[in-house]
Amino acid sequence: METRFEFEIKDTFKRMRAGVVKTAHGKFRTPVFVPVATFASVRGLDDKDLKELGAEVVLANTYHLHLRPGDELIKRLGGLHKFMNIDKPIITDSGGFQAFSLGFGMEHGVGKIANNIFLEGLKEAEYKGDKWAFVTDKGVRFKNPITGEVVELTPEKSMKIQSNLGSDIIFAFDECTSPLSDKDYTAMALERTHRWAEECLRYYDRRQALFGVVQGGEYKDLREKSARFMAKKDFAGFGIGGSLGKSKQDMHNILEWVIPLLPEEKPRHLLGIGAVEDLFNCVERGIDMFDCVAPTRWARRGHLYVSPPEGNPENKFRIHIQNSRFKEDTKPIDENCECFVCKTHSRAYLRHLFVANELSYFRLASYHNLHFVLRVMDEIRESIRDGSFFELKKEWLGYI
Amino acid sequence: METRFEFEIKDTFKRMRAGVVKTAHGKFRTPVFVPVATFASVRGLDDKDLKELGAEVVLANTYHLHLRPGDELIKRLGGLHKFMNIDKPIITDSGGFQAFSLGFGMEHGVGKIANNIFLEGLKEAEYKGDKWAFVTDKGVRFKNPITGEVVELTPEKSMKIQSNLGSDIIFAFDECTSPLSDKDYTAMALERTHRWAEECLRYYDRRQALFGVVQGGEYKDLREKSARFMAKKDFAGFGIGGSLGKSKQDMHNILEWVIPLLPEEKPRHLLGIGAVEDLFNCVERGIDMFDCVAPTRWARRGHLYVSPPEGNPENKFRIHIQNSRFKEDTKPIDENCECFVCKTHSRAYLRHLFVANELSYFRLASYHNLHFVLRVMDEIRESIRDGSFFELKKEWLGYI
Repeated sequence: METRFEFEIKDTFKRMRAGVVKTAHGKFRTPVFVPVATFASVRGLDDKDLKELGAEVVLANTYHLHLRPGDELIKRLGGLHKFMNIDKPIITDSGGFQAFSLGFGMEHGVGKIANNIFLEGLKEAEYKGDKWAFVTDKGVRFKNPITGEVVELTPEKSMKIQSNLGSDIIFAFDECTSPLSDKDYTAMALERTHRWAEECLRYYDRRQALFGVVQGGEYKDLREKSARFMAKKDFAGFGIGGSLGKSKQDMHNILEWVIPLLPEEKPRHLLGIGAVEDLFNCVERGIDMFDCVAPTRWARRGHLYVSPPEGNPENKFRIHIQNSRFKEDTKPIDENCECFVCKTHSRAYLRHLFVANELSYFRLASYHNLHFVLRVMDEIRESIRDGSFFELKKEWLGYI
Repeated sequence: METRFEFEIKDTFKRMRAGVVKTAHGKFRTPVFVPVATFASVRGLDDKDLKELGAEVVLANTYHLHLRPGDELIKRLGGLHKFMNIDKPIITDSGGFQAFSLGFGMEHGVGKIANNIFLEGLKEAEYKGDKWAFVTDKGVRFKNPITGEVVELTPEKSMKIQSNLGSDIIFAFDECTSPLSDKDYTAMALERTHRWAEECLRYYDRRQALFGVVQGGEYKDLREKSARFMAKKDFAGFGIGGSLGKSKQDMHNILEWVIPLLPEEKPRHLLGIGAVEDLFNCVERGIDMFDCVAPTRWARRGHLYVSPPEGNPENKFRIHIQNSRFKEDTKPIDENCECFVCKTHSRAYLRHLFVANELSYFRLASYHNLHFVLRVMDEIRESIRDGSFFELKKEWLGYI
């Protein structure tokens, strides 16, 4: 690695760590919640909002940007930082998750943790009666859902695309298996992922920091095998990806198998996870980085975050603003929240905007939800420093 | 009138005037472009944006707010200013235009100046084979497009609704005729509008400033009759509404017939008009106030304002951002624009966001377009003060 990437652990508490990641585009503190800018935009928000929100890093999706507007176009325009006007670290994923989910999503009707599949910008009807993605030892071939053309993603190509994008942290191309894949298939896919990891190490742009991805589904021996394999390689950090099982408990088990096998001095990123409860439970198990579309996606659907006592693990710390009980509610979304939306707007007004499908709703709601999650993470980080994590966790989750 | 409304003319130049309107919620300078907040939100923007943009007044639609969320609800919540968190003057229209356009729009397939009809939030299919609005001497009955229930708007009811909304400036309930209405119908409708104006004067909330609306379609004698009638009544100002003919020339003629008959000391509001070229040509003829959804609506459709020399009356001072020539264009939307969007984002990025249908596009585009029109109006106002209006007009329109 060059000096463009550095991870410094400043405080530890049990298995938890609070630190700083330094990149060519500045630093971010960990544990961190990374907002997702799928198509080079955190949905509903702009760069000015992100600055105001104190988002220190964003993650963009390689798969999406390769298809639209194209990574080569972004390269000609000076890279993703310039394109988005973001002067802070940018992470890109490998494109694997989205490409494979076109395949297994169709076959199994599932997503990351046995949830409904989501494919940004695509309509369900577009898949019907057709398999969209095929995996070979070389990579994955899929139909471009925009143009219908066949696209191939390989480890080398993923490295090339991410180089074109010019992100600071990139991920190795991995095969993402379904929660319904059996052990034999998962084991075979894991071998492929490991070979691909080596290819990525060969091809990646040395100006970027490459993270390997631990796969292995919900199988203990496979996860351990993958963690041991990745740990020995010269990665800057590690993602934990693929199927995280069928329940939260499965996910926790996977973290407990994997994390002790990864080198202490490198950051660990839990890919695509970020519900409020998960932030506590996964930081506790040693996770440093999270990315998730949850805050902005839930916002768009009317689910707004609230803190305890109104928010709790049962209601997932959310109210649904469309509920008629908010019709004349002059309180802010969350009385403990310091964001400008909560300081200036009532639930009644936000409910009205949501029901009327007004555009400004989407921004105000997304702003609040992202602010909420970023502040939870600030509190968690602080609680690692001063050793009050379990008090904080109890206050939020009601259990330790 | 009480002292809650005051219009002070500070400078004049030919028929043009630059002044200040004072209300209980502060003042705004004229000539003014008033952004439209149909459903209590300027589409795509929020109150913080409006403050930043220097919008000194907004106009909300009585018809829409009566249907959703309901004026009585807004009253219980403390009125429109509190509901929207807008601490500046708010204007509401009478609801007439929208209610009538449900009727004549269906019959004639037309809108304000022989254009396509627009009905915010409604789909074309919803009207087919059905007449939605019926006019009687008492008012207009129409089907609520949200619930299907029959709603009646009368002069008294319009005054009551606008009182509930608590706006600073309100409009008298008028019958808005179609550009395809014949003279006999227009004359009959005008009598009705005049009777209704007297009813409004009887019923309106004295804490608000009531503007009368001059109707009469494209007929000189009817427009003059209406202007003379309204001029004698105790209105705080005047709207010029209804069909403004079939061409820009028709509209200019109407202004030249009407304006000399209205009292100098009261403001004149040209309802629903606000293209860049119109601002010059109508201020020149003595208009003080404009409201129009154009900047934000065009923005949403991809049409972004540009100043001369790129912008001109032929291209309506707009580029269409979807055009492939902007794919790699690193220039701002408008090189002369000082808005944050132009300072920080390229046409290439905005084109990408538009094509990807990203939510943030709508805000950035709306912000730029509204900024653009507000700054044009600033320049026009300044040019009245210093007598350089015709130089400015020539620079923008290429003609005097």
